[in-house]
This record gives sequence, C-alpha cells and structure tokens, in this order.
Amino acid sequence: MSGGGQYNRHAKVQSTAQSFALPLLERAAESAALPESPRPIVIADYGASTGANSTVPMKAAVQILRRRAGPARPIHVVHNDQAANDFRALFLLLESTPDGYRIDDDVFSYAAGRSFFTRVFSREHVSLGWCAIAAHWLSRVPAAVPGHVWLKRGASGPEARFAEQARADWSTFLEHRAAELLPGGQLVVVFATADEEGRCGADDCLDGLNDALKAAVRAGDVSEAEVERMILPLYFRTRAEIAAPFERGPVADQLTLIEHAREVSPDPLWAAYEATGDAGAYARAFTGWLRSFSESTVTSALDAGRPERERQALLDALYARVQGEVERAPERARSRWNMAALRIGRR
Amino acid sequence: MSGGGQYNRHAKVQSTAQSFALPLLERAAESAALPESPRPIVIADYGASTGANSTVPMKAAVQILRRRAGPARPIHVVHNDQAANDFRALFLLLESTPDGYRIDDDVFSYAAGRSFFTRVFSREHVSLGWCAIAAHWLSRVPAAVPGHVWLKRGASGPEARFAEQARADWSTFLEHRAAELLPGGQLVVVFATADEEGRCGADDCLDGLNDALKAAVRAGDVSEAEVERMILPLYFRTRAEIAAPFERGPVADQLTLIEHAREVSPDPLWAAYEATGDAGAYARAFTGWLRSFSESTVTSALDAGRPERERQALLDALYARVQGEVERAPERARSRWNMAALRIGRR
Repeated sequence: MSGGGQYNRHAKVQSTAQSFALPLLERAAESAALPESPRPIVIADYGASTGANSTVPMKAAVQILRRRAGPARPIHVVHNDQAANDFRALFLLLESTPDGYRIDDDVFSYAAGRSFFTRVFSREHVSLGWCAIAAHWLSRVPAAVPGHVWLKRGASGPEARFAEQARADWSTFLEHRAAELLPGGQLVVVFATADEEGRCGADDCLDGLNDALKAAVRAGDVSEAEVERMILPLYFRTRAEIAAPFERGPVADQLTLIEHAREVSPDPLWAAYEATGDAGAYARAFTGWLRSFSESTVTSALDAGRPERERQALLDALYARVQGEVERAPERARSRWNMAALRIGRR
Repeated sequence: MSGGGQYNRHAKVQSTAQSFALPLLERAAESAALPESPRPIVIADYGASTGANSTVPMKAAVQILRRRAGPARPIHVVHNDQAANDFRALFLLLESTPDGYRIDDDVFSYAAGRSFFTRVFSREHVSLGWCAIAAHWLSRVPAAVPGHVWLKRGASGPEARFAEQARADWSTFLEHRAAELLPGGQLVVVFATADEEGRCGADDCLDGLNDALKAAVRAGDVSEAEVERMILPLYFRTRAEIAAPFERGPVADQLTLIEHAREVSPDPLWAAYEATGDAGAYARAFTGWLRSFSESTVTSALDAGRPERERQALLDALYARVQGEVERAPERARSRWNMAALRIGRR
C-alpha cells in the first residue's frame, strides 16, 4: 500500500464493498462476550491501513458496546496493520474526525504495528474483531505469474501454489484470532471472494496496469526482469475455501461460522461516472484507487539501484498511461466485486 | 521533531542523558504494583518519539517484570507520542531490533498517538511509566521571545509566562498520570533541569541556529516575521518547580516523589571529538542532533505559501551554516546537561 493520505483519499471502493458487512458487525457487537470489569473492552481493527474505512464501523461498534457496558467502562480500539503502515496518518485522521468513534472520554485508540499473520494480542484479550478488505492479501507471493501482474490473468501454472498459500494463510489468520478472542468473542471478516466459476467480478481490473508495464518495457523504461517480479499477492477464495477451516483442522473446535453473507458490490466510481458523464474524473478516481493498492508492489520490484527521483517519475508515467487509457475507454475499467462477509464466534 | 530516521540517528545525546535514570526505572519495576491476573501488565513509554531510546530501558523493565510475574503473563509496552509522530519508524525499529525487549511471545508492543497532556490510558491501567527527555517540552509557546529562538537567550520579558506555562503543563501531566497509574504503580521521569542559578548547562546550544537565522534574514532568504515565530517551546524547571506539585495541589494526595536524583550529563559528541580530533565529524553530529529537535519549529513557522522544495533547500542551507560555524569553533557548541530523574509512586 502507498502512503497514508493516498490510501485515505482513494478508499471509496473499499468503503462501498464493506458496507454490507456493517449489520454483521452490529450483531456481533450486540452478542459478543465482554470481559469482567475492570478489564477494558477491546475491539481489534485488523488491517486498518490508515483508518479511512475504520471510523464508521468502529463508531457503530463502540455505540453498541457503550450501551451494553454502561458509562465509564473503558473501550479500547486497537488498529492493526503491518509495521510499515502509515500509523501517523491514522492517528492524525482520528484527531481530525470530530464525529469519530471516540464518543466519550472512556474510548481510547491504539495501534499495533505487526502482521496479522502473527499474534497481535495476548490470549483471550479481544471481545470484538473486524477485518475489512484485507484478508484477501496473501502473506507472500508464492510463485511467479507468467505474463501478468495478477494470477487471474496470467498464464496457467501457478494456480495450485497460490491456492495452497491462500489455504495456509487463512488457517494461520484464524488460529491467531482464535487465540486472541475471549471465549464468546466475535470476529467479522469482509473480503473479496470468487464465485462458482472462480470469478471475482473485477478480474480485468489490473489489465490496464499490466498493459502500461508492457509498454514501459518496450520503451526501455523498465526491464523485463523487474516486471516479472511485479506480482500482486492477491487471492480471492471460493465459498468452500472460506468455509473449510471451520469444518476441520486446528480451529474447527474453537471457531464457529455464524453467518456467511455474500453480495455483489457495485462500483461507486462507475456510479459517479454514469451520473456526470465525466470520463476524465472517472479515470482519475479509478487510477487513484488502483495506485493506492498496487504502487508498493511496483516500486519494490524495481532494481535497488534506481534513485528515488527516477522511481517517482517512472510511477507517475505508468499510472498516467493507465489513466489515459481509462479515459479513452471507461467501460474497460468498470468493476463489480463479489464480496463475502463472515461473522465468526469463538466458543 | 523531524521524521523518524532522522531522530533515531541523532538520539545519542538523549541516550546519554537518560542513562543515569535507568537504576530508578529498575527499582520502579521491582516495586511497582501489578494488576491481578489475567489483566496484562502495562508499561507506558511516554514521549517515545521513534523508539531509538526506548529499547534499552523497556528491555530492562520487561526483564524484571517477567521475573516477578512469571512466564506467560502478558506484558504490554505502549509507546506514546503525539499523533504526528512517526510511529511507522517506531514499529519498523522494533521489528529490526533482534535483541529488543520482546524477549518472549507474551510481550506485545502498541502505540498511542495522543499528546501526553491528555489522557492516554483508562483509569488505573498502568503499572510502570517511563518518560525520558520529553517533559521539558511545553504544550505550546506561551509568549513571543524577542531576539532569539529560545527563552534562555532572548530579551527579558516573557520569563513569567513561560514559567506559568511550565507550571500548568507539569501539573496537567501529573494529573493524567495519577489517573492512569494503578494504585501502587510507579513512574520515572527524566528531563533537563535548571540549577540554582537557572542554568541548564547548555544555555548557548541554540545560539548557532539563531545566528544562522539572522544571517538568512540579512540575505533575504527568510523574513523577520517568520523568524519571530520560531520559538522552541522548551523550559527547564528548577528543583523547586519540579517538586511543587507533590507538596500541594491536585495530585499531592495521590503521588509521592520517592526519589529525585540530579546529575550533570557529559556531551557524548564532545567526548568523541576529544578522542578523534575530527572537528568535521563533531560538527556533523552536533548539527544532526540539533536539527532532529529544532527543524519542526523552523519549518512550521515559515510562510504557508512556500513550496516544499524551497522549504527543504532553506532548511538545508540553514543547518549547513550551523555546521560550518561549529566546525570552525567546536568549543562553542560543547554542552553539558543538568539532568533530573524522578521516581514517582501512586498511592
């Protein structure tokens, strides 16, 4: 992910895609077990990025927990992401959101800078967990993808290794959460998923970036070796892959899948385009969103010797090319997202 | 404070100045009250900046608490600083410090991005607090200082308003800590102090920056109005000012001053210069240290309209001038620091 402000400005797609999971979060907040007083009630926000999509769900959860727990009971909201996340942007956003989730003086905000594929909290610490638009990112790229930045559109071959990495990561994620949740605690996960035919609904959304990279290779701006290293560690699990760990394996005794909702989420950028007809604005919005989650993959694959200024110019040119193409043919960039939302209970 | 890496690289002066307080922290860790199991043991690191000077004291404290509490009892280290602090640098430092304070899997790290002049934790949450080289920064600049960036060397007039701000800030700081500490919890504060004659031992350490600013005004690079806004919100309290809140006022019934140690801390940069005779290296080290804590005051006082590139060039030229002067006359930059370390107990 790129720097904080960037992501915060371009998180509208994610915000729309997670909104159908809010009722699940509210039901979880209504029914999750709370620790005995005076222990604080802990809400964990896993994969928070810089917080743009955290304030609304966290406020909904805090309001319900405040009503259940009564006044003055401390509520801790802990925003988790990787150590390299821009937590400064997150805390500044919380300070500058007057209508945020800190609805009284007994709600506190913290950050935990550690991968959610490791333990983030001590045992039986968390009452309520939330993980939005994050768990479809794998912990690593498990195999090269010939011809494309994304498994979905590359040559066949690496599918099995991606599937195995996705299985292992999902299992690891759930094992850590099972340890961290209080008995009776609940966790809501919302992420992109694949339908029965294996489609996520936006399978071509990275074609524009891939085309721009190929053009940059032809122009001699980027080497083939660099582009081969640019692979987004994304994997959209099917319904069966999502459900498997609750049926057998190390967490099946500890975690229950209470709800598994699925929805096709519309493209909010496209809706704005249909209303205005402004292809330039649509292209800017699409490219800003694309860049916010793909830039770090591109830049980290560039040769180490490239000076910072050159990297920046290269990235700017690359995404400008994507933007130009989208403006010429907006329909190609239109996405729909197959989303899954899970409400998970800890026994 | 400037960006993380910058501060981490130039924190040697602070590190030396806080080292005499480590035995007080160890005694506090030995005797502080711990919460009842299964509540985690919480250590608060107030004013952590980007963590360069936190890993050693936190490790000392964690080792003692681990021995006292036994294996598997969760210990939470929460690093606090203002929302605008570079917490990314802090978490990356923790990940890249193999010999750090996370001595086992039951030690967890968090961040709290909020001014320590507000409540950072819920009531009776913290067993052990540590605040190093931070509480001599005021919450705001209370008055203009004619002719200098620092109260100590400007024209007389604003002393009383600085003293009143320092009194109010110290009282506010201690009130919040009294609320946050468990009964029987302890807090160690180490900061620069003034001796009986009001001297901190390094009263002229900002003269070089002030001279460089005056030269920049003469050259037309900075306006007088901009320089008038550049005032470092630093105040070094006397022994009596430090002790006053424990004798009367809102926290006198809650907090006890168990130890009040004082020491003159040598300049570690000067020691290296004496060993090597390398005035260029000394000037670089001094200027790096100076810039790490003064840059934000300078840059935030520049006119809002100045483009980022111009600001950067201006800062670079300013500190290059300081560095050149120090290289020509190293003795002028030599500092000694009058330091105070307090061990405070919550009744």
